[in-house]
Amino acid sequence: MFRPARLDVTGIGNAIVDIIAQTDDAFLARHTIAKGGMTLIDAAAATHLYGAMGPGVETSGGSAANTIAGMAALGGKVAFIGKVQRDQLGEVFAHDLRALGVEYETPASHSESPTGRCLILVTPDAQRSMNTFLGAGQELRPQDVDPATVEAASITYLEGYLWDPPHAKDAFCKAMDIAHKAERLVAMSLSDAFCVERYREEFQHLVAGGIDILFANETEIMSLYQTTSFDAALQAVRGKCAIAALTRSEKGSVIVAGDEVHVIDAVKPRTLLDTTGAGDMFAAGFMYGLTHGRALAGSARIGALAASEVIAHLGPRPQSDMKALLQKSGL
Amino acid sequence: MFRPARLDVTGIGNAIVDIIAQTDDAFLARHTIAKGGMTLIDAAAATHLYGAMGPGVETSGGSAANTIAGMAALGGKVAFIGKVQRDQLGEVFAHDLRALGVEYETPASHSESPTGRCLILVTPDAQRSMNTFLGAGQELRPQDVDPATVEAASITYLEGYLWDPPHAKDAFCKAMDIAHKAERLVAMSLSDAFCVERYREEFQHLVAGGIDILFANETEIMSLYQTTSFDAALQAVRGKCAIAALTRSEKGSVIVAGDEVHVIDAVKPRTLLDTTGAGDMFAAGFMYGLTHGRALAGSARIGALAASEVIAHLGPRPQSDMKALLQKSGL
Repeated sequence: MFRPARLDVTGIGNAIVDIIAQTDDAFLARHTIAKGGMTLIDAAAATHLYGAMGPGVETSGGSAANTIAGMAALGGKVAFIGKVQRDQLGEVFAHDLRALGVEYETPASHSESPTGRCLILVTPDAQRSMNTFLGAGQELRPQDVDPATVEAASITYLEGYLWDPPHAKDAFCKAMDIAHKAERLVAMSLSDAFCVERYREEFQHLVAGGIDILFANETEIMSLYQTTSFDAALQAVRGKCAIAALTRSEKGSVIVAGDEVHVIDAVKPRTLLDTTGAGDMFAAGFMYGLTHGRALAGSARIGALAASEVIAHLGPRPQSDMKALLQKSGL
Repeated sequence: MFRPARLDVTGIGNAIVDIIAQTDDAFLARHTIAKGGMTLIDAAAATHLYGAMGPGVETSGGSAANTIAGMAALGGKVAFIGKVQRDQLGEVFAHDLRALGVEYETPASHSESPTGRCLILVTPDAQRSMNTFLGAGQELRPQDVDPATVEAASITYLEGYLWDPPHAKDAFCKAMDIAHKAERLVAMSLSDAFCVERYREEFQHLVAGGIDILFANETEIMSLYQTTSFDAALQAVRGKCAIAALTRSEKGSVIVAGDEVHVIDAVKPRTLLDTTGAGDMFAAGFMYGLTHGRALAGSARIGALAASEVIAHLGPRPQSDMKALLQKSGL
């Protein structure tokens, strides 16, 4: 499927550190937080919400960054492009990628904005509700996209969340152009149903006109095509891009590629604690599979395996030896 | 046992944020890290080790601070005294205490030192090896000990680690004096076998001359009295302080108080992942019990319960609803 490449995937996304606290539904209601979604908040709101929420655990996050970290943990060759500040959280973010062997060379910001953070509230049903202050992530610009890092990768992976900062969508489009000119594939995640609401038309154009591999969950793909039926959404996306990988939580995933449709079971987690990162890890496993000679169904099974690991603990990135887990699974 | 008090416990200790990574024994060997111990490192060594270690999870730590957080999670009324910097990790540390209802008013440092951090390496046997850069924690001074906060507490809890920074032992002694003048109890943790090695004679004097409740694990108490027999150490400590609470990992704990000796079983954890904080949580549960009308044995059982919760996940502080856990246990 792929001609030789130095990198399997280059990911571009908002550089975010997660601050995760367990809470209850009453807290979400009191603070009018949209359960299961990602809400953008400003610095003042972040300070206010942080003051109100319980003690946290900090871990590097960011949707595409999680996917890249997951791929590195599986043994993939990967790079990441995203913007942090020269502060302690920025150091943590950069360390956590480089420690996994991820190429991460985006210059840190020179502005006043601190590194972006996401206040994640996890309820007893393992659902996560995200409140993101983008901070220095706002400053990602096209010049941050190093052409060589994109050209070198079999797949360039972009998150839909890049539509939120003012110049990041230009970085997204620049990367897409470079990748296609180098005859590489472009993958995109729809990120979040609210994000799809904000940019539906642009996302529809993107999916129809340049994205080779689309990742979306059930809610996101139904929102994209404004339908309440998953099957209708599936029919709508079929043919618009070469591969659509649609995830449905415990109902597993459906991979659509032209006439091919694969229905793949979810892998039951050891325990279900925090669904943060489930979609990101599915994408990591799926792209690891594709770039390592697996067929569509096998790739989706690796995605399901990676997702099952991450939802068994707090935090959006693997805490287990993923290479060992993959080997043990026989996938 | 206690006359009325506004606070159950005031804790004093090094204010530390933990950076936790899973690793293997080979990594410890390569970096000559003393397994199971706490080693002090300087800023340069911290940067070097952080660069070498894997991706981390960040969480507030510090031995006495963990104990105070654990007591707050159980429903205790508590305060903490310890020094952070005005930086992102310092904000995290303060937030995580205040979010639990802990009184924490120690002025932040004005120096250049960043907030202290502990690089914790967890091996597959769940053992943790700690490498601490004290940072702003170094600057704790007697003037940081607010007399009213000490006088108001039934127990003032001090960590042996306070002997490491230059002026913190003076803060320790000031707090001990204030507590005793107010006819309150003073509790101390021996912290770490290497720490006992560094300050053995001073710790022996302290235990014999002012500490009412001593917390130590098997290795620490044997090191304090330079014996290779736990029973000999137990006999040595008996009578030196009113209560000695000696923990022995999966072998449970032994409480010695004059002629009373209680042998208490450990509580088997759901799973065993990371022993960081086990001793701190035992102390939290034990002091919660004592200050809430439980006898010695019952208090030790709460300690064992709290310890079993914390070793089942990464990180030194509770991630479960401890009040619910306590209620469910019938203790």
